[in-house]
Amino acid sequence: MNACVELPAVMQACRGRVGTVHLVGAGPGDPELLTLRAARLLARADVVVHDQLVGPGVLDLIGARAERIFVGKQRSRHSVEQGDINALLVRLARAGREVVRLKGGDPFVFGRGGEELQALAAAGVPFEVVPGITAACGVAAYAGIPLTHRDHAQSCTFVTGHLQDGSCELDWSALARPRQTVVIYMGLSALASIAARFVEHGLPADWPVAVVAQGTLAGQRVVASTLRDIAAEVAAAGLESPCLTIVGEVVRLRDELAWRGAASAIGAAAGG
Amino acid sequence: MNACVELPAVMQACRGRVGTVHLVGAGPGDPELLTLRAARLLARADVVVHDQLVGPGVLDLIGARAERIFVGKQRSRHSVEQGDINALLVRLARAGREVVRLKGGDPFVFGRGGEELQALAAAGVPFEVVPGITAACGVAAYAGIPLTHRDHAQSCTFVTGHLQDGSCELDWSALARPRQTVVIYMGLSALASIAARFVEHGLPADWPVAVVAQGTLAGQRVVASTLRDIAAEVAAAGLESPCLTIVGEVVRLRDELAWRGAASAIGAAAGG
Repeated sequence: MNACVELPAVMQACRGRVGTVHLVGAGPGDPELLTLRAARLLARADVVVHDQLVGPGVLDLIGARAERIFVGKQRSRHSVEQGDINALLVRLARAGREVVRLKGGDPFVFGRGGEELQALAAAGVPFEVVPGITAACGVAAYAGIPLTHRDHAQSCTFVTGHLQDGSCELDWSALARPRQTVVIYMGLSALASIAARFVEHGLPADWPVAVVAQGTLAGQRVVASTLRDIAAEVAAAGLESPCLTIVGEVVRLRDELAWRGAASAIGAAAGG
Repeated sequence: MNACVELPAVMQACRGRVGTVHLVGAGPGDPELLTLRAARLLARADVVVHDQLVGPGVLDLIGARAERIFVGKQRSRHSVEQGDINALLVRLARAGREVVRLKGGDPFVFGRGGEELQALAAAGVPFEVVPGITAACGVAAYAGIPLTHRDHAQSCTFVTGHLQDGSCELDWSALARPRQTVVIYMGLSALASIAARFVEHGLPADWPVAVVAQGTLAGQRVVASTLRDIAAEVAAAGLESPCLTIVGEVVRLRDELAWRGAASAIGAAAGG
């Protein structure tokens, strides 16, 4: 009890108090696409835990006094490290700190946000969720490719393009259909395989597909082609991960609707 | 020429200048979910053209000097009015005004944003697109329902629940599958029919489904049930459109992850 008296008042007030974890979507890259709430939370956080999909412009919005913890994940080590991240979040909150867990895009779309929240819930740590612009929406907007359109696509589907042990686990018969748009997150390493599967399952070889690198950032590059040629054209253009792949007739609308960097893209295979 | 000299300098500068149309997503309702860029554009716009899915809190962010034009659409009169909206946007831009075309959610997800941009492109009017938090992401975050989760859903699909002439045009065999999440925009009037179709096409009658009204707003209400019972429970709870329906095993995670208004939802069928 005597030791307690010697603590600064603010620290005493914090003793026993559990901080809140704010699971926040950072959006697709352009810091202007952060939500108002996300920007406010970043400015006042005690500590920000972020991964590699969060761009530098977004990190600039973190308040000067906040601690920053990078928890970028290696793809091959997901299962081990996810547990470490969960434990870190619990530990920080139990230390009474206001934590922003910042994830690229939207935390509930391929972000494993649900898994982290389950760990927090099990530990009795309070949390909130702030959605972010998911990469599909951000990239589509900046590339001039509507995800739905009455003439071309009545639905859109988001899948991940990570293949386990070289085998494709996607539900190809549901994906390889007309009148829908399929967006594949992070599919560059498997692009040739993915394009071939769409054709094997019934889409025409000249079906439109676009791959976007650095989506929404100043260095955004778009290669629009067909299922038959996309892998070769992306390789020739030298695009690098992370990328987003959009499959569907809506890709053709880019010829009319590309607006970003349009002036510099004239005559270039990769632009805008 | 003489008349020109008498115009104020600022108006002279504007003569012949074509304004830009900024196609902006307003997000799901909570104004805190607007992007930084959207908020900036609203504050400085000459005129804001918006529809009924944009909430009052968002409209409060429009600058005082801006003209506001409401172009809410009746569902039965889409085709006629869409042409009028397109023409209005072209006319405003040609008058040299900076136009924000503000749409609920994301303008490229069931927003007909692509159609409006095609009209602008055809008329030579410059535009940009600012993505918004689409309703599925906003509602999922605030309802504590991850759209994807390694244990339950590897993909998510967004569709509209509007039925034409009582017939269902959705691709049911692709939608009624395990290990994916399906989000149906605006499906309340057809909810019983939609739930029945999922069961007819192979999902169990006790498959989880949630309907969310007033998503992300203070009055948000969530009814979580099964395909068999959802229509009756939503009717009993008195939910009103616009609603969002989420179908998939991830709905069960809400039992652990509901965080918004959790204290007031105890013992209530519709809460949070």
